[in-house]
Amino acid sequence: MTDPFPAGDVPEGVSASADVSIEELQLSLRNHGMHLEGLRYDVTPAGMHYLLIHFDVPEGDDATWLLTVDGLVDTAMALSMADLRSRPRVTVQVTMECAGNGRARLTPRPISQPWLTEAIGTAEWTGTPLRPILEEAGVQDDAVELVFTGADRGIQGDVEQDYQRSLAISDAMRQEVLLVYEMNGAPLPPQHGFPLRLVVPGWYGMTSVKWLTGITAVAEPFEGFQQTAYRFRQRPEDEGEPVTRMRPRSLMIPPGIPDFLTRRRFVDAGTVELRGRAWSGTGPIERVEVSADAGASWADARLGRPASPYAWTPWTFTWDASPGQYELSPRATDAGGNTQPLEQPWNLHGFANNSVQRVPVEVRAR
Amino acid sequence: MTDPFPAGDVPEGVSASADVSIEELQLSLRNHGMHLEGLRYDVTPAGMHYLLIHFDVPEGDDATWLLTVDGLVDTAMALSMADLRSRPRVTVQVTMECAGNGRARLTPRPISQPWLTEAIGTAEWTGTPLRPILEEAGVQDDAVELVFTGADRGIQGDVEQDYQRSLAISDAMRQEVLLVYEMNGAPLPPQHGFPLRLVVPGWYGMTSVKWLTGITAVAEPFEGFQQTAYRFRQRPEDEGEPVTRMRPRSLMIPPGIPDFLTRRRFVDAGTVELRGRAWSGTGPIERVEVSADAGASWADARLGRPASPYAWTPWTFTWDASPGQYELSPRATDAGGNTQPLEQPWNLHGFANNSVQRVPVEVRAR
Repeated sequence: MTDPFPAGDVPEGVSASADVSIEELQLSLRNHGMHLEGLRYDVTPAGMHYLLIHFDVPEGDDATWLLTVDGLVDTAMALSMADLRSRPRVTVQVTMECAGNGRARLTPRPISQPWLTEAIGTAEWTGTPLRPILEEAGVQDDAVELVFTGADRGIQGDVEQDYQRSLAISDAMRQEVLLVYEMNGAPLPPQHGFPLRLVVPGWYGMTSVKWLTGITAVAEPFEGFQQTAYRFRQRPEDEGEPVTRMRPRSLMIPPGIPDFLTRRRFVDAGTVELRGRAWSGTGPIERVEVSADAGASWADARLGRPASPYAWTPWTFTWDASPGQYELSPRATDAGGNTQPLEQPWNLHGFANNSVQRVPVEVRAR
Repeated sequence: MTDPFPAGDVPEGVSASADVSIEELQLSLRNHGMHLEGLRYDVTPAGMHYLLIHFDVPEGDDATWLLTVDGLVDTAMALSMADLRSRPRVTVQVTMECAGNGRARLTPRPISQPWLTEAIGTAEWTGTPLRPILEEAGVQDDAVELVFTGADRGIQGDVEQDYQRSLAISDAMRQEVLLVYEMNGAPLPPQHGFPLRLVVPGWYGMTSVKWLTGITAVAEPFEGFQQTAYRFRQRPEDEGEPVTRMRPRSLMIPPGIPDFLTRRRFVDAGTVELRGRAWSGTGPIERVEVSADAGASWADARLGRPASPYAWTPWTFTWDASPGQYELSPRATDAGGNTQPLEQPWNLHGFANNSVQRVPVEVRAR
């Protein structure tokens, strides 16, 4: 990766050090990742799914919670949780990833939640489709976006705010967009949005607003803090393109056994069955390749079938491991022809760094 | 805190920097803490309880899992999960804390899982008492300890090992020690020990071995890696005292709203109801005091009742907050007269740093 600030003149919010500060550590201990051995499960077990909470986990009360639908609609609505549960019920497996996944591997390093590669998970979400609710409310022709408001409140970039994100009407109207009240067959855990959240399959997680209290149809594109923050910029003054759908990525279960502190892997020589998952928000996964030589050569993995169009695709690869030092990488390609880069794509806030996973492995003679 | 290495000659495994390395960050993203706003719940919701996994989460199979009881016993046993579930069933709320909680606040900073103050949680554990099983097996008179073996395997301190910890026979025979198969009314999540773990109420968490496969009665005190690692040492050559029961600690829900990056708190002036929990492994909580002036003065909080003798004690404190800058701290004292220090107790591996929580707060005029 070419250093975007070769003179060492890094802008505010970017660190020249790979080490993280106590403030970033504080975030990493709250906003945890998925254990990569969790890639063995189709559905990530409760509590193992990645989590990113901007402010605090609010105290939600199922009995009194109300979702308001207002703004440029013919009929404003206020829906209780009982109302929402009485509507058509849909369950679907969805893979979700944080837009900041990979951020802490960048040089220089954008300062925020310091993800490495673990900000992922697949849950079985249960809820009701959003579209029929919008149709009942009657979104007016002059509305261009819907603003989704969560109950978590705090300060970011000197702006006090409820967490808010918007979607274009056409994106919000897609049949897979759900108002969700269950995760893996149980009520949403508080930290995943109890009692109600939005789930937008295929998009990075910031779009799937937790603790959802309001949906407002608006006439102008929303320019709230979270909407302008999630953009691809090289320099602070750039307008940038919005961060939307997940780029392709594949991760493998690190084989063998780990060293506690370094997480370095030790594998016994012989036939090793490598396993992992791949996903993309821009098309079905069509190919996963594996390299055991730091990306110099690649061979195709065998693909399984995803549990839903929005869930990750399992893959396996048989590796004949002889003693020595290796760097293992999987690389995913989707039906849109999008593939993972070997170099890290740098941007100012460290979004969508989908460069290939690199797993150093020492193979030991048996 | 007095710097234990004033000449700057810090030993291996200790960092002079407050910033954490990418390896420690990797651990912090796997081994997550409890969100402090989770102190509002008597029982920590699934997935919010702190987690410390030395190696990998093993793949447990309930149908084929066997717990062996062997060594210096009259009758060696091999118990299936069905066997264990057919035995007397006990459910109890237990507060558990990692021995390394507070480690990353020390100067110089021991290098390991870099906890700040969030390595806690209270679960409702269900299982069967260990003592009757030991009585059936008939632990022989020449046995001095029981060694508990978990299925997680890896390398630590250059030693390849299954995770193992021991208890003196008298500690293991205590009626509150359980073999646990449910957490919060559901099967153990994989990352919390599925299908079977030990829970030793009152002790730091390293004692409550997860993915339990074996219990072996031995004639000599166990000197495996994890047993010798968890000792209070000032210098690498020290023998040190073993780390056992939890020291008293109290934590509060940080009031007001946070700044995303710094987690600094902002509170509106007026009457603020502070809430928190306190616990100790060395006696019931008898007193919690609160300071709003960085420990210069203290006033008593009101104590609630713990749900069990092994669960944290809730407390509340009414604070009349006028505009300005404050540092809030709660301080717990147990029936043994043990209380929390204001200075951090330093030791080489950063165990049991129970110095008082410090929550900087800015009170804003309404």
